[in-house]
Amino acid sequence: MESLKFTTESSFNGMREREFTVGQVPGVLWSPASGADRAPLVLLGHGGGNHKKHPAMTGRAELLVTGCGFHVACIDAPGHGDRPRAAHDEREIAELFRARAAGEPEGPIVVRYNAHLAELAVPEWQATLDALQELAEIGADGPVGYFGINMGTAIGVPLVAAEPRITAAVFGQHWPDVLAEQAKRITIPIEYAMQWDDEHIPREAGLALFDAFASKEKTLHANAGKHKELPRFEAASAVRFFARHLGRAATVPA
Amino acid sequence: MESLKFTTESSFNGMREREFTVGQVPGVLWSPASGADRAPLVLLGHGGGNHKKHPAMTGRAELLVTGCGFHVACIDAPGHGDRPRAAHDEREIAELFRARAAGEPEGPIVVRYNAHLAELAVPEWQATLDALQELAEIGADGPVGYFGINMGTAIGVPLVAAEPRITAAVFGQHWPDVLAEQAKRITIPIEYAMQWDDEHIPREAGLALFDAFASKEKTLHANAGKHKELPRFEAASAVRFFARHLGRAATVPA
Repeated sequence: MESLKFTTESSFNGMREREFTVGQVPGVLWSPASGADRAPLVLLGHGGGNHKKHPAMTGRAELLVTGCGFHVACIDAPGHGDRPRAAHDEREIAELFRARAAGEPEGPIVVRYNAHLAELAVPEWQATLDALQELAEIGADGPVGYFGINMGTAIGVPLVAAEPRITAAVFGQHWPDVLAEQAKRITIPIEYAMQWDDEHIPREAGLALFDAFASKEKTLHANAGKHKELPRFEAASAVRFFARHLGRAATVPA
Repeated sequence: MESLKFTTESSFNGMREREFTVGQVPGVLWSPASGADRAPLVLLGHGGGNHKKHPAMTGRAELLVTGCGFHVACIDAPGHGDRPRAAHDEREIAELFRARAAGEPEGPIVVRYNAHLAELAVPEWQATLDALQELAEIGADGPVGYFGINMGTAIGVPLVAAEPRITAAVFGQHWPDVLAEQAKRITIPIEYAMQWDDEHIPREAGLALFDAFASKEKTLHANAGKHKELPRFEAASAVRFFARHLGRAATVPA
C-alpha cells in the first residue's frame, strides 16, 4: 500500500489545508482548523478541465469543514491539475474543442473520454482512501461520503459501485450511457442534481440516470436553467445531505 | 371587506396560536410567541380530507415560526375541518372511496373534485389575505408565501396565478390536467415536490406539472418512494426556500 505524504500545510477561513501525494497522485485534505478530532470524511470529485483546488472545490470544502466538522479530500484526476496530460488526453480535448466550435453535440466525446478517465481514477481514489484512513483523525471505520458533479459523477459512479466504504453520495449532470449500468448496482442514499434546461444533457438522459440508481433513498434536484447555471444553494443542500447521512449537525446557509 | 375576528388564543412550542374567522371561514394564525414584530406571512394549504390544525400543518407552522420568525396562516378548505359538507362533497367523497375499494384510479375523481373546491377556496383565501394584511404585525406590503401539497396545490396553483401579493410558493404531488394551464401564468420562484414511485400520480404527470410553471427560478425535488412517503426533510427544505425568497434567516434541521 502506498502511504500518504504531506507536502504543504496552511490555514484559512477556519480550515487547515494540507496538500499530499499518494504515489504519483497529488491531493489536498481540508480539516477543521481547531483540533484533529476524528470525523467523517467526504471525498470531492472535481469537474472536467478543473482541478483539486478549483474554487468550486474549496467552496464546497469550506461548507463541509466549517459547517459540519468533516474532513474533506480531493485529488487531481488523470490529466488534470498538477498531473501531466497524455497524448490521449490531448487528442480527446482537441476533439472536444473541435466539436464545440463546430456546434456539434459534445456528449459522445465527454462520455467516452470520462469513461476512460474513470478507469484510471477509480483505483487512484481507492489507494487514496486506503492512505487517508491510516490517519488517526479519519480512521478505518468512519463514515465516508462522495460528492462530484459532471466528470466528478463519471468517476464517482463507478467508484461508489466498487467501494463499500462510501455510504452516501451526491452526483449530478451526466449522461446515462456508460453510468446507468453501474448505477443499478448502487444502493446507498443518493442526492442527484440536474439542470432542467441543460443544453448538453437531454432532460430524458438526466432523468434516466437518476432512475437507474437502485437506492431506496434517493432525491432528484432539478433546477430551471442551463448546464452551467446550477444554483449555489445546491452545494449547501449537498452538505445537509451528508450531515444527515454521515451523522453530523450542519450549519450552512439556507 | 370582511374583517378578521379572533376566537381563541394559546401558546405552545414557542408559538402563539390564534384561531379566527373571516366571514364563514375558520382559520388559524401562528406567530412567534415573543412579540408581534412585523414579519413575512406564509399561507399553508392543507391536504384533502385534512384540516387547518392537522399535525402536518402545525409541524410546518412550527418550523416556519420558530425557524424563521414568520407568521403562518391556514384556513379550512370548503367541506373540510370545522366547515359543513355539502351534498356535492358527500357524493364526491363517496365516489372516491368507491373507486379506491374497486382498485380504480382515483386521479380523475381527485382532479375534478379539487378543481371544484379550488373555485370556492380561491376567493376565500383572497378575503383571508385581505383581512390578515390589516393586522399591524403583517401589514399590506410585506412578502407573502404559499405552501401546499396535494389538495393544497390544487387550490394553491389557481390562487397564486390570480394573486400578485404571493411572491414564492411550494407545491407538489398533483396532476397537471387542470393545473398546467394555470401554472403557465405563474412566474414567481417555485419549489415542487413529487414522489418518484407515486402509485396515484404517474411520473410523467408530475414532471409535466413542474414543467408547466413559467418561473425562471423553479426547483423540482423528486424522492424515491410512494405517494405517502414524502420525506420529512422536504418540510425543512420548504422552510429554507421561504427564508431565501421572503428575506429571513432559517434555523431548521438538515
